[in-house]
Amino acid sequence: MKPRLLTPGPTPVPEETLLELAKPVTFHRSPEFRAVLAEVVEDLKYVFQTKNTVLVLTASGSGGMEAAVGGCVAPGEKAILLIAGRWGERWRGICKGLGVQIVPVEVPYGEAVRPEQLEKALAQHPDAVAVFATFSETSTGVRGDIEAYGRIVAKTPALLVVDTISGLGVMECRTDAWHIDVNVTGSQKALMLPPGLAMVAVSDKGWKANERANLPRFYADLGRERKSQDKGETAFTPAISLVMGLRESLRMMKEETLEGVWNRHERLAKATRAAGGGLGLDLLSSSPANAVTGFRMPAGIDGAAVIKQMRQRYGITIAGGQDHLKGKIVRVAHIGYVSEFDIITAISGLEMTLSDLGYSVRPGAGVASAQATFAGTRA
Amino acid sequence: MKPRLLTPGPTPVPEETLLELAKPVTFHRSPEFRAVLAEVVEDLKYVFQTKNTVLVLTASGSGGMEAAVGGCVAPGEKAILLIAGRWGERWRGICKGLGVQIVPVEVPYGEAVRPEQLEKALAQHPDAVAVFATFSETSTGVRGDIEAYGRIVAKTPALLVVDTISGLGVMECRTDAWHIDVNVTGSQKALMLPPGLAMVAVSDKGWKANERANLPRFYADLGRERKSQDKGETAFTPAISLVMGLRESLRMMKEETLEGVWNRHERLAKATRAAGGGLGLDLLSSSPANAVTGFRMPAGIDGAAVIKQMRQRYGITIAGGQDHLKGKIVRVAHIGYVSEFDIITAISGLEMTLSDLGYSVRPGAGVASAQATFAGTRA
Repeated sequence: MKPRLLTPGPTPVPEETLLELAKPVTFHRSPEFRAVLAEVVEDLKYVFQTKNTVLVLTASGSGGMEAAVGGCVAPGEKAILLIAGRWGERWRGICKGLGVQIVPVEVPYGEAVRPEQLEKALAQHPDAVAVFATFSETSTGVRGDIEAYGRIVAKTPALLVVDTISGLGVMECRTDAWHIDVNVTGSQKALMLPPGLAMVAVSDKGWKANERANLPRFYADLGRERKSQDKGETAFTPAISLVMGLRESLRMMKEETLEGVWNRHERLAKATRAAGGGLGLDLLSSSPANAVTGFRMPAGIDGAAVIKQMRQRYGITIAGGQDHLKGKIVRVAHIGYVSEFDIITAISGLEMTLSDLGYSVRPGAGVASAQATFAGTRA
Repeated sequence: MKPRLLTPGPTPVPEETLLELAKPVTFHRSPEFRAVLAEVVEDLKYVFQTKNTVLVLTASGSGGMEAAVGGCVAPGEKAILLIAGRWGERWRGICKGLGVQIVPVEVPYGEAVRPEQLEKALAQHPDAVAVFATFSETSTGVRGDIEAYGRIVAKTPALLVVDTISGLGVMECRTDAWHIDVNVTGSQKALMLPPGLAMVAVSDKGWKANERANLPRFYADLGRERKSQDKGETAFTPAISLVMGLRESLRMMKEETLEGVWNRHERLAKATRAAGGGLGLDLLSSSPANAVTGFRMPAGIDGAAVIKQMRQRYGITIAGGQDHLKGKIVRVAHIGYVSEFDIITAISGLEMTLSDLGYSVRPGAGVASAQATFAGTRA
C-alpha cells in the first residue's frame, strides 16, 4: 500500500532531499564540507530569523534541549518551566536530570500557559535564571505565545529558552525580535529532513549566561560547539549526510520564502480544523498551533482503533494521544513537506475510518469543509 | 575528479546502504520500524560478540562515550584512563567535563599502554571504579591490548570501558569473552555508514554499576535507553534513515562473516605496512592496529603538503597528523568498505605525491610490496 506519513515527526522528506542522503559521504574536515556547513548555517539564520549563528548538533531534539539547559544554568540555580503538555514535561525531565531547581507553571492539556501566569511566577521568583517554554506543544496541538513571553522575560535578567522543534518553519517565529535567548529545533519537522540533527541559536544575553553556566557536560556543550563552528567545523563528527540533505531542504524553503512557508501551514491548519468541524469533531486545543491538529474522539470511538484502522486499511499514519490522552484524541500533522491534497487525503481517510468504526458521518463532509477553506484562503 | 575516501572516519559507504538512506522515512513507533531495530540489534550483538543487548544512540561517537562515562561513575568517584593518543585524551576531556576524578596512565604517541602499567595503577588505586581504554587509537594507528586489560580488570570491582569506535568490525574484538563492561562504537567506521549513530553494549557488571552511577544526565542516559529499547523502541526519536542503512551494512557484514571481515582488514593493513616499507617510510606505531596505518614523513617532506597534493591532484583523501604530530605523519585508513584495490590506489597516489614533492622513490615500489603481501596472504 502506498504509505502516507502525517505524524508530527518524522514528517515527509522531499525526494530531492532524500537523494542528497544517498550521495557518497564527504570528509567533514574538507573545504567542500565546510562550504556546505556555511551555507546551511546562513540559511538557518534566515529560518530562525536571527543575526546570531545557529549551531548544528548531531542528536535528537531532546539532545539539543539538554544542551540548552546545560548551557545556561549552573547547578542549584532556579528555572521557571511553562508546562502545557508532554513536551513541557520534557523540559522538566531534563532539568531534573541535570539537577536544576524547578518552578513549574502548569495548565491543563489543551490550554496554553497565559502570559500573566509567567509574569506572576517571575515576580515570585526573581532569582530564576531561565524560563523554559514550548512554542508548538505537539502532544496537544497548542501554540505557546512566545512573543508575549519574550516581552515579559526580556525585562528581567532571566533567559527565555524555547523548544520550537515542531513549530519553527511552520508558524511565524522571530528569534531576535521576540527576545528568544536560546532557540532549539530539530531536523525531522518543518526542516523536511529525517531525525538526527538538532539546531540551537543563542542570543548575546544567552552567551553571557553561558560563561557562568557550568552544569557538567562535554558532548552537549554549546560553548565548545560555538568555538568550533565559528571556525567553520563542528566540534564532533557530524551526521554528514543529514547536513547535506538539510542544505537541499533549506534551499526549498528559501525558494518558497519564509512568509510563503508560514502562510501555507496556516492554510493547511485552518482547513484541517474546518474539516474537523464538518465531521462534528471537537478540537482539543483552545489556542491551536498550525503544526498539528488534535481532535477529540466522539463517545464510543477509541482513538487507538482509529489510528490502527487508518494505518492498516488505508496506509495513512497519523498520531494518537499520549499519556492520559491515549485513545481519547487523534492528531493530524501538517508540518513541512505537506500540501493541500495531503490534507484532503488525511481527512478523507479519517472520514472513511470513522465510518468503518460505526461513527455516523456524511460522506465527504470533512473533505468539503477543507476544500471550502482552501478556496477561501488561496494565496 | 572521482573522489577516493581513505580517512579513518567517515569511511566509504556501500551503494546498497546509501540507497537505503534515500528511502522514505518510516514512523519510528510503527511495527515496521520496530522490526528494523530488532534486526539491527541482533546483528550488532553478533558484531560486538555479546549476549547482551546493544543500545543504539543518535549521536556522534563522543556522545556515546559521554553516555558510557555518565552511566558507570558517580560524582567524585575515581577512574583510571589509559591514554595513548588523541582519543585517550577524549576520555580525559569527557571525564573532566563530567567531574570524574582522573588517574591518567600515559604513553608516548605511537606506543600502547602496557598491561603491567594498568596492573600497577589498579594496585595503587584500588578505589578506582572504572578503567577507560581505547581499542584502536586512530590518531596514531596503535592497537590497545583489550584482551589483556580485560583479564586484569575482571579481577577487580572496576569496570572496563572501551572506545572501540574505529576498531570494532576491523579486528577481533570479543565483548563478553574479553570482559569489556561497556563497549562504545560509532557508525561511520567499520559499520560502513555515515556518522550519526553511536552504539553501546553493557555487561551485567556494568548494569550493576549503572544503578549506583548518578552523574547528571538525561539524553545520554544508558539506563533510560535500555528500558525503552528492551520494549523495542529508542527513548528518543532516532536517526531513522541511519538505522535503515545500518541494517543493510550489517547484512553485508554477516554475509562476509565476522572472521572474514577481520581477515580482510588484516590483509589490507599488512599490505599497507609493507607498502610503506617499499617506499622507505617508517611506521609510527609499535603495535599497529589494522584500522589505520600512520607513516612518518621523511626529512624535508611536509605531511600537510602530502595530504593537500593527494587530495587536489589525485582526488584521494587520506588523513594527516593531529596536535604535535601535525605535518609529521600521514595516515592511510583501511576500515569498512575497503578492498585490495583501494589500498593499491592509496599507495599509488602516495608514491606519485611523494615523488611530486621531491622525495626520491622508485616508481611502483610501494605498490609492488602491497601486491606481494596480497599474493602471500590471499584467503
